[in-house]
Amino acid sequence: MTSTPTPASSPTLGQYLFDCLKAEGISEIFGIPGDYNFSLLDTLERYEGIRFVNGRNELGAGYAADGYARLQGMSALITTFGVGEMSACNTIAGANSEYVPLVHIVGAPKSTDQQAHKLMHHTLLNGDFDVFRKMYTHLCAYTAILTPENAEMEIPTAIRLAKQKRKPVYLMVAIDLVTKPIVRCATPLETPCGTSKSALEAALQHIRGLLAGSNHAVLLSDMLTLRYGLRDAVHQLALRLNLPAASLLLGKSSFDERHPNYIGVYGGAFGSEQVRNIVESADCVIAVGMIWTDINSANETAKLDRLRLVDIQPEFVKVGETKYENVMAADLIAALNASGWARSGAIPQISHPYDSLTGELDHPIRAASYYPRFQRMLKDKDIVVVETGTLAYGMSQMHLPAGADYISQQGWQSIGYATPAALGACIAAPERRVVLFTGDGSLQLTVQEISTMLNNGCRPIVFILNNRGYTIEKYLNVKTSDQQYNQIPDWQYTRLAEAFGGQAFTARVRTNRELDEAIAAAEQAQISRLCIIELIVTDPLDAPEYLLRLRKHLEEQERLQG
Amino acid sequence: MTSTPTPASSPTLGQYLFDCLKAEGISEIFGIPGDYNFSLLDTLERYEGIRFVNGRNELGAGYAADGYARLQGMSALITTFGVGEMSACNTIAGANSEYVPLVHIVGAPKSTDQQAHKLMHHTLLNGDFDVFRKMYTHLCAYTAILTPENAEMEIPTAIRLAKQKRKPVYLMVAIDLVTKPIVRCATPLETPCGTSKSALEAALQHIRGLLAGSNHAVLLSDMLTLRYGLRDAVHQLALRLNLPAASLLLGKSSFDERHPNYIGVYGGAFGSEQVRNIVESADCVIAVGMIWTDINSANETAKLDRLRLVDIQPEFVKVGETKYENVMAADLIAALNASGWARSGAIPQISHPYDSLTGELDHPIRAASYYPRFQRMLKDKDIVVVETGTLAYGMSQMHLPAGADYISQQGWQSIGYATPAALGACIAAPERRVVLFTGDGSLQLTVQEISTMLNNGCRPIVFILNNRGYTIEKYLNVKTSDQQYNQIPDWQYTRLAEAFGGQAFTARVRTNRELDEAIAAAEQAQISRLCIIELIVTDPLDAPEYLLRLRKHLEEQERLQG
Repeated sequence: MTSTPTPASSPTLGQYLFDCLKAEGISEIFGIPGDYNFSLLDTLERYEGIRFVNGRNELGAGYAADGYARLQGMSALITTFGVGEMSACNTIAGANSEYVPLVHIVGAPKSTDQQAHKLMHHTLLNGDFDVFRKMYTHLCAYTAILTPENAEMEIPTAIRLAKQKRKPVYLMVAIDLVTKPIVRCATPLETPCGTSKSALEAALQHIRGLLAGSNHAVLLSDMLTLRYGLRDAVHQLALRLNLPAASLLLGKSSFDERHPNYIGVYGGAFGSEQVRNIVESADCVIAVGMIWTDINSANETAKLDRLRLVDIQPEFVKVGETKYENVMAADLIAALNASGWARSGAIPQISHPYDSLTGELDHPIRAASYYPRFQRMLKDKDIVVVETGTLAYGMSQMHLPAGADYISQQGWQSIGYATPAALGACIAAPERRVVLFTGDGSLQLTVQEISTMLNNGCRPIVFILNNRGYTIEKYLNVKTSDQQYNQIPDWQYTRLAEAFGGQAFTARVRTNRELDEAIAAAEQAQISRLCIIELIVTDPLDAPEYLLRLRKHLEEQERLQG
Repeated sequence: MTSTPTPASSPTLGQYLFDCLKAEGISEIFGIPGDYNFSLLDTLERYEGIRFVNGRNELGAGYAADGYARLQGMSALITTFGVGEMSACNTIAGANSEYVPLVHIVGAPKSTDQQAHKLMHHTLLNGDFDVFRKMYTHLCAYTAILTPENAEMEIPTAIRLAKQKRKPVYLMVAIDLVTKPIVRCATPLETPCGTSKSALEAALQHIRGLLAGSNHAVLLSDMLTLRYGLRDAVHQLALRLNLPAASLLLGKSSFDERHPNYIGVYGGAFGSEQVRNIVESADCVIAVGMIWTDINSANETAKLDRLRLVDIQPEFVKVGETKYENVMAADLIAALNASGWARSGAIPQISHPYDSLTGELDHPIRAASYYPRFQRMLKDKDIVVVETGTLAYGMSQMHLPAGADYISQQGWQSIGYATPAALGACIAAPERRVVLFTGDGSLQLTVQEISTMLNNGCRPIVFILNNRGYTIEKYLNVKTSDQQYNQIPDWQYTRLAEAFGGQAFTARVRTNRELDEAIAAAEQAQISRLCIIELIVTDPLDAPEYLLRLRKHLEEQERLQG
């Protein structure tokens, strides 16, 4: 006997939305209240199993949601119409760029006010209530305007597409419709993209041919390995095929850096020479989840021979110049594991640039001395969050501990991302230690989320590199020097927690000894509170090796053009 | 003899752009550096007559530009591609909503990288370099991608449209093209929209008919009076026609509040009863630059009889239900001034709600006691910047001093606007006193621009209303109470300047006496430094009369619907 649910038994639109998000493992939603999202937040405040985390502004809340999604698989952000959602464009664009599934929910004016095209606050005062959604179609895999009638169709569709494409989606709902019971309708069936057997066979045969004559194959792992949950599969692939494995910069931590097959990050002319030699002399490169950006290719100094490349993407594979559609990465990797082929010879033993401590204890801290100290202090399963700028280049060469997650926005590269993303990481994984590395210039963009951390009992260790300006910009501009516009106000970073009404362990360090002591003290203090260590460098242009090489390359390019 | 300019004599694209902006009276440009706008900023740093003001993030820099434009007539903002411009969407949307001419200039990747559809950082990593411009077409009156060949056409066109429509415009330029000499071409002629004589005559005749039988006409002035520079014309109109003049909330300060004909702000059921009676009993309402939003109509409790309304818009007029196109407001007002008609009788004498001080000196500060004190401390020609929220409602009833400018974003209503807008005001008018009124919740969104103020030697007096949460949101939500999501961290606001590495006069006040003393001290201190006065209220739900009435209205509506 089947029973048709009566309308009375239907959840409200808001409850149903949160049911769907909870089913995806979301237990916290980020956002900022506004008068058009009251009914969403009122529903959420009474909803069991999801907590609302109130950021200090939409950009921060959005970045926090982004960081959360990188660990949890998906996240959600609630903003208000117009003013709220328009402050989140950067974060949604970043989530698009870096394949982060994020459900952006916007509370909109009353449906009758929209239908009457009233000139409401938070609008362009032109009666158009669809303009912001239209803008978001450029940044999202899906957008929908929810009603009780379409909720059971639109919400699962949006979530399915967010998962499948690893992209943000946008859902708008009028304030008065959130509390209406949904009208039951057929939920669209999930039709997972399946692998075509014939395409998989053809691809496999092509790859076998390539591997047959190969003595020096290598594995590259990148960002989409992380996003599509392929880490374990890639680890196994490296073991079975006995391949040395490198990451690309955007995919750092997509291959466990303490795995026996790991050799390092491949960064073309700027990264490790040893890794470069192995990768560039390989007769076959199996790349998983690779996105060939300017940063990953180290300004095109990294060279991959397309004809020797097996480019495994989430839903297709390209072998040489031939593309095989409808081949799911997991299926292909499983088939390769079962293929019986394995490279012969040992995995090369590579030294990592920060393996030994350098710098006299009483000397000023320098990149050469503090990166090895960062490496030494990191522990298994730490979540390492790194800001764009000099730090991202320096940290790319870090030899991470086992099980570490590395969060850094190296595709979109929006400065200010890392601090709120670290907040998101703290909320997503309260049982793990979060270590944030940020620069002074970047921190100033989104500093208020330190307040949100304090307010939520988050206890990251925050390293702030104070080099008095946008040092990265000084490096990247080879045409002029001493730019005024790259200077920033000199903050008292260790006073911030106090101004935000909170308590933190703080230290300002200028020498290697002070850094060692501060790290030791912070490791104790972190048990009970947030820690801020400000690194004050003597030379504002001190930078890691990677960046010095990048600069040299840019200068050469400039000379050639000039 | 005519001479054709040789290419060598042409300015570069960047120089030409700045020449055009300087010609509009722009002497400061706001923005944030990024590696795709180096050539713009390098050019600007060497350009005479325009200074770059580096904000702490794009939202803040954009709001500052908005505030600047409200005083200077136009402003400019420089951001970098993708990450920069996407953080400015809210500010550009606000400028659109509130008719602010703002030229948003975006530095983009190298033209050859764009043409090759390379996967560059700060992009969606899909080879599309036009996606963000497309988004901005929804928010801007004009967008263009500049080249040396089209600069002399596109830049003047964009500026002309920004001026004509009082809207933001968007100009994108590839980093390598900024330093190329422009190719001279015919600059498009400015064809100012002229008044149609016949339309003007017809409208005038219609209005004369309406006025002929009128004994109780009244003048309303609103936002577009400010934006289209019609203040003086409207003052004269009131005098010539002997009309009592009220402002609407979005147009506060569009009619000088010490002008003999001024009666107050018309706020329907929430504002002054006296003003309401005069406006609603009028037999003819001449409105200038009015936008009939939910806020202006005080949630539709304000009632204007369309049939008795002369609705003077910048480029047309509506008399009753008849619309006369191509009638420029200035021409129509001049014609009305010359019409000879005048209302008879004296201008009603209206009392203003904050005219007398209330509250025992040692009693806790309350809305009823601090608004009169704000009114007393304001001076002629002050620039008064007011945040959205309880303060905007309370301040709407302020009797401003002569020549004061009032900056508040009451159409778009994005919280966080006022602090950076005050920065923009300080930069635009360094010789005038800027007084900022902001709330704790709002300040937290854009607090870092206080650092930019300190860094630029700005000396506003900043009042921070600390009522421990989003009080306005608590008032607007009549469905639930004690919302957790409306709570915010309790900051030490007077410690902020220190944390930002600056020095400020600070005071925390809890009683009327402390407020009086703090104001007196700040008025002295302001000569040399920024002043922060934190008002700590005992009752977080204390609010001005206007808001209490709004709340009562919402409760009634809820009861009727429920």
